[in-house]
Amino acid sequence: MTQKRCMAYLGPEGTYSEEVARFLAKDEWRLQGFPSIEDAMWAVAQGEADCCVVPFENSWEGSVNVTLDLLVHELDLFIQQDVRWPIRHDLWVAQACEKPNSILSHPQALAQCRAFLGRRYPQAARIPVVSTAEAARRVASGDGDAAIGSSLLGELYGLKLLERGIQDDEGNCTRFVLLVKEPVSCRGESVQTSLICRIDGEKPGRLYELLAEFAKREVNLTRIESRPARTKMGEYVFLMDVDGDAAQPKIAEAIKAVQGRCVWMKNLGSYSVHYEANQ
Amino acid sequence: MTQKRCMAYLGPEGTYSEEVARFLAKDEWRLQGFPSIEDAMWAVAQGEADCCVVPFENSWEGSVNVTLDLLVHELDLFIQQDVRWPIRHDLWVAQACEKPNSILSHPQALAQCRAFLGRRYPQAARIPVVSTAEAARRVASGDGDAAIGSSLLGELYGLKLLERGIQDDEGNCTRFVLLVKEPVSCRGESVQTSLICRIDGEKPGRLYELLAEFAKREVNLTRIESRPARTKMGEYVFLMDVDGDAAQPKIAEAIKAVQGRCVWMKNLGSYSVHYEANQ
Repeated sequence: MTQKRCMAYLGPEGTYSEEVARFLAKDEWRLQGFPSIEDAMWAVAQGEADCCVVPFENSWEGSVNVTLDLLVHELDLFIQQDVRWPIRHDLWVAQACEKPNSILSHPQALAQCRAFLGRRYPQAARIPVVSTAEAARRVASGDGDAAIGSSLLGELYGLKLLERGIQDDEGNCTRFVLLVKEPVSCRGESVQTSLICRIDGEKPGRLYELLAEFAKREVNLTRIESRPARTKMGEYVFLMDVDGDAAQPKIAEAIKAVQGRCVWMKNLGSYSVHYEANQ
Repeated sequence: MTQKRCMAYLGPEGTYSEEVARFLAKDEWRLQGFPSIEDAMWAVAQGEADCCVVPFENSWEGSVNVTLDLLVHELDLFIQQDVRWPIRHDLWVAQACEKPNSILSHPQALAQCRAFLGRRYPQAARIPVVSTAEAARRVASGDGDAAIGSSLLGELYGLKLLERGIQDDEGNCTRFVLLVKEPVSCRGESVQTSLICRIDGEKPGRLYELLAEFAKREVNLTRIESRPARTKMGEYVFLMDVDGDAAQPKIAEAIKAVQGRCVWMKNLGSYSVHYEANQ
């Protein structure tokens, strides 16, 4: 029997990244949680893992900056698969507790349930902690009344479900990416291509010229995101998602033209996008 | 003697926001710390404070999403002043301790000192906590060896300086904004105008058309940042910073033309920008 290949994910156990890794891996991969996005991505870069699942963008909070910045500044990884995963936050308690006095979670999870908490538990203290797993661990050990997190997490820590699906935005969805060491060139329906471009910050209007290369070929940009170039304040790199695969002539031409206008460009690959339905 | 007007800031005591608030307030304002950016901004919206100082963008980490999202989605506040403040992280310990086994801080501060920590303290555990103030509080109470934070913070908690200026990026700088309830129309040198635009996400190429309105009038865009529109995944609002004041005819014309192309537009005002020198 051959050893299973390793899929890293943002741990600890019970995170949404683990839910997605389980979905992708089925029984064919060995899963391994890492304590940070950085650790999971470095594990792939250094060959300790074959691929990793990390969050990339949330419909409510926007880009996951750590993931994007590592792809821009440090690691030569590529996207193999994109999974849009519905995020359902549940409220978990250690014992039968109808009126929690404290509710713990990651600041983003607290923010995503703000209207609900204000309506249902106006008196409870909101306590921001470093992860949803840390919130569950503390509640399980008696240090706090309730934790917000995934159902996987609540079960893992033996907590009791107080309320299900408490996020304010019904459509709350996170985009996870499966990252690998070699570029991927997928084709077909529901394929997307991602580019990272750094343009000369001294020359205004450069972003406009870049977008013109897509617009005049009728190539559809589905996302444009700026991040600091880390050179000086006011210089940026841009992440652009293009609808379609880079083997299509008009997309290949646009990419070539864009490359000529950039100080630096990286093609993160053409990969398929999976939309998981709400449960 | 009249009562001093109130300037809110992102607390607790010892934050970089307090440093900037002290700089702006001199002796003419009463300063009040709030536990979150949201609380500080709501205090102004509800009239409990006259203005507030909150972080808006970091040269390394990019946008402060909470601030931007509140301006986009919730609060009708405007920018009165922009301050670019150099960020210096110091390493603080409770007692004479040359080899800390644990180093606590906010995840962003840890990230901003990563190369330094790897070089000087490779064995020390990095412990992410919810704020730099929480790190200092824990170290002062004996729960952890060292904390990363500002000099104001170290002094406030009676800690001892182990190393000064440990951030990897010498040019690390945060842009703070002073927010008020009424729009401001500053003129002159070193003035900037900020706009928030929501365009029709169904129609690709709309961002390109928007940028054309600036480019054809030779109006310099110094920043463009996308944030989720919070309608559905793939729809964004854009924050744009324009070099100059909105009383200049070419800028006034561009803004008018852009407004005609947007589903929704908000002018955050024309305000002066102050660059604080490195200390």
